[in-house]
Amino acid sequence: MISKIILKEIACITGQEHLITARDALKEYASDATRLESMPDAVVFPGNAEHVSRILRLATEKGFPVIPRGAGSGMSGGAVPVRGGLVMAMNRFNRILTVDQDNLICRVEPGVITGHIQEAVEKLGLFYPPDPASLNISTIGGNVAECAGGLRAVKYGVTRDYVLGLTVVLPTGEILKTGVETMKGVAGYDLTRLIIGSEGTLAVITAITLRLIPKPAENKTVIAFFPDVSSAVRAVSEIIRNRIIPTVAEFMDRLCLDCVKEKMKFSIPRSAGAMLLIEVDGDEDFIEQNALRIRQVCELCSALKFIAARDKKEANRLWEARREVSPSLYGLRPHKISEDIVIPRSKMADLVAFLDKLGRRYNLPIAAFGHAGDGNIHVNIMHNRSHPGELENAQAVVKDLFEKVLQMGGTISGEHGIGITKAPYLEMEIPRAGLELMSRIKNVFDPRGILNPGKIFSSSSPV
Amino acid sequence: MISKIILKEIACITGQEHLITARDALKEYASDATRLESMPDAVVFPGNAEHVSRILRLATEKGFPVIPRGAGSGMSGGAVPVRGGLVMAMNRFNRILTVDQDNLICRVEPGVITGHIQEAVEKLGLFYPPDPASLNISTIGGNVAECAGGLRAVKYGVTRDYVLGLTVVLPTGEILKTGVETMKGVAGYDLTRLIIGSEGTLAVITAITLRLIPKPAENKTVIAFFPDVSSAVRAVSEIIRNRIIPTVAEFMDRLCLDCVKEKMKFSIPRSAGAMLLIEVDGDEDFIEQNALRIRQVCELCSALKFIAARDKKEANRLWEARREVSPSLYGLRPHKISEDIVIPRSKMADLVAFLDKLGRRYNLPIAAFGHAGDGNIHVNIMHNRSHPGELENAQAVVKDLFEKVLQMGGTISGEHGIGITKAPYLEMEIPRAGLELMSRIKNVFDPRGILNPGKIFSSSSPV
Repeated sequence: MISKIILKEIACITGQEHLITARDALKEYASDATRLESMPDAVVFPGNAEHVSRILRLATEKGFPVIPRGAGSGMSGGAVPVRGGLVMAMNRFNRILTVDQDNLICRVEPGVITGHIQEAVEKLGLFYPPDPASLNISTIGGNVAECAGGLRAVKYGVTRDYVLGLTVVLPTGEILKTGVETMKGVAGYDLTRLIIGSEGTLAVITAITLRLIPKPAENKTVIAFFPDVSSAVRAVSEIIRNRIIPTVAEFMDRLCLDCVKEKMKFSIPRSAGAMLLIEVDGDEDFIEQNALRIRQVCELCSALKFIAARDKKEANRLWEARREVSPSLYGLRPHKISEDIVIPRSKMADLVAFLDKLGRRYNLPIAAFGHAGDGNIHVNIMHNRSHPGELENAQAVVKDLFEKVLQMGGTISGEHGIGITKAPYLEMEIPRAGLELMSRIKNVFDPRGILNPGKIFSSSSPV
Repeated sequence: MISKIILKEIACITGQEHLITARDALKEYASDATRLESMPDAVVFPGNAEHVSRILRLATEKGFPVIPRGAGSGMSGGAVPVRGGLVMAMNRFNRILTVDQDNLICRVEPGVITGHIQEAVEKLGLFYPPDPASLNISTIGGNVAECAGGLRAVKYGVTRDYVLGLTVVLPTGEILKTGVETMKGVAGYDLTRLIIGSEGTLAVITAITLRLIPKPAENKTVIAFFPDVSSAVRAVSEIIRNRIIPTVAEFMDRLCLDCVKEKMKFSIPRSAGAMLLIEVDGDEDFIEQNALRIRQVCELCSALKFIAARDKKEANRLWEARREVSPSLYGLRPHKISEDIVIPRSKMADLVAFLDKLGRRYNLPIAAFGHAGDGNIHVNIMHNRSHPGELENAQAVVKDLFEKVLQMGGTISGEHGIGITKAPYLEMEIPRAGLELMSRIKNVFDPRGILNPGKIFSSSSPV
């Protein structure tokens, strides 16, 4: 518990109106998209880097936990205050500071909604490609902290690939600029990318310099249905072999199709075992040519049906299938464990066959959809926690899944991070020497362990 | 000095035939492309990661320096054994281990020449974009250690953007896999990118997993001459504003043009103050369209002359201008200090005007060429060390240049690294809190400081 005296000191830094201590009001800050809950002692809304610095210095001196928070839309529990303490909500860092059209660079504060950055730069003919599904609610600071991916990663890469530099506050209070504001830079160790994806455990981000690119002129969406997953995966590989890097190559398995088919405004072939939603972007001629080539490839790969959107409205209708899949899975069971493993693309059909076996073994529906272009598959283990044993079975599926994924040369997290939900499994993937290095790096940044404690490293990790 | 007993132990690990101790033979390993020299005590050629591990363990136990070395083509002294010790030459790690055509991934050992990787994958229709000018001599391990850039960085990014994972040996002997072998991955801290660009000071790399892309079908080269630098810079910005990201956008100032003009097979307009060499890649129609648009943009930006290569042979002739520039500068003075600063692209004309002023102030020819697309300019301070005061003047230029570059929001190194040549200046760019973090991270990896000592951090840096 943070003492009243300390809370008073915090209020002196930010003003009392930017500090929440009332239990009712705190509840909103107890959880994130995982719905796991743990109550903080207080929530503070710093207004500038100096506030952040003074609060962190105090935390290091007194030894209370500080949990940085963006929109609370994280998928691995990164913002859940598992050990109580002070939630540091970055909502007031909500400005787009500069958009430099000559150098294709933009500086933003961490509390800006990612989608708002995209809108602002697209008005100027520029483009910030990373597009996590949460982009209309999640903040850029959270995206950087988790190294968020998204649908367009297959062509454009992930958050890491667009961050040039950061301003951060270290747990000991120093305000530090890392990286560069130019397109290249290699001076000293890459602290910028060390902090990206560190899930709020190394430093609090107060400003971000992003690289932009010119906005592609047009895009075109197509959908193809296949008899089975292996045909769909073959189609993705063949498309890329034809030198077409799609902007998006999303995949859905049979179970997902069953869940969404009622709601779709187009009919899904009865024998469809997999769907691909593909988007290409670029100049008009270019995308029309590519869409045609994609159709040919899909047909060669036994596609049952192919639909090309003729305009934005039709594209929207096709996208509905993808947008509806996540919520519609709740029709199978009321609870969901959603993993975001990555495997080599060529092994996707094997993985889906394995999920099928797992589902039968544990008697649970397991639905797979996600980013076929880069092998980043969202595996949804549906279950009902009020049915005895189902949660345990779902957890057993997670363990078996991770073992298989690692055997296949994959990783347990493509874009959601480790947080608390995957912390117990991290040592399945990262060798002991790696975990030790990470713990010691944590200690270099945060000698008293005040910043987001309990995340990434499980209690059994070496420190 | 490494004792005879220790040298015997090293010979036991690798075999005597893989250890050099004869002074004459050592000379070859005393320097790199900087021509700065310092003699090592011995050179070892480990044959596998286990050898590397046993040698590093021994070094940590006994406390002697180990200097990892690729081809010795580095531009900042990274491979120069400034404190003597054991050069660890990675020449025997010379295999391309796998090229996975389905997943567009390739695993290589660090001693493979980068150009050989490109040839091997291009035969399969794949592409490894980073192309430092040294690609036909430098090794991929050296490229990773320095985070090498290259001409194509403006479109395709730098080495960092293509490394998915590493196998490294820590100074304490542990063999560690970092990162992933898939297209995405965010499990734990990003040790991979912390090691990339760490200039052989954190770990010895023994295997590298690279991301590949499909090889662009065609490319087309054009050259344009402008009356002055600002017109050339405006042209680059306008090209990008027209949604064309050139594969290459190389720039040369008037002094460079003067040096190469005799050797060119095409005439350079007398009033030319700057040249751009631009390349675009993609499908044939696409690049022809783009070349046309580039011509229009250049003409709008006052281009004096525009040449578009009609075939590979003509392209080669245009490229000669760029290839000849670096050696031909020695016609001005026998010695060169070559910096690789980066500034916001929009400030390039200001920088070149500043160089002009500096050249007059210190009475030295200063020639600028390089990567206009990303603002990474190679500034060549020509001088004659046998003329009293010229070396000192050249060094004064460096200091003034770095001050100006940092004022402009730039960085002192875009792709060559800090090594020894820029170590004294690093604290001009990186704030003290950053240098402290870096030193402590170094200490986490390398508690006895055996790995490439004297690099990056100057003796005045905090430890």
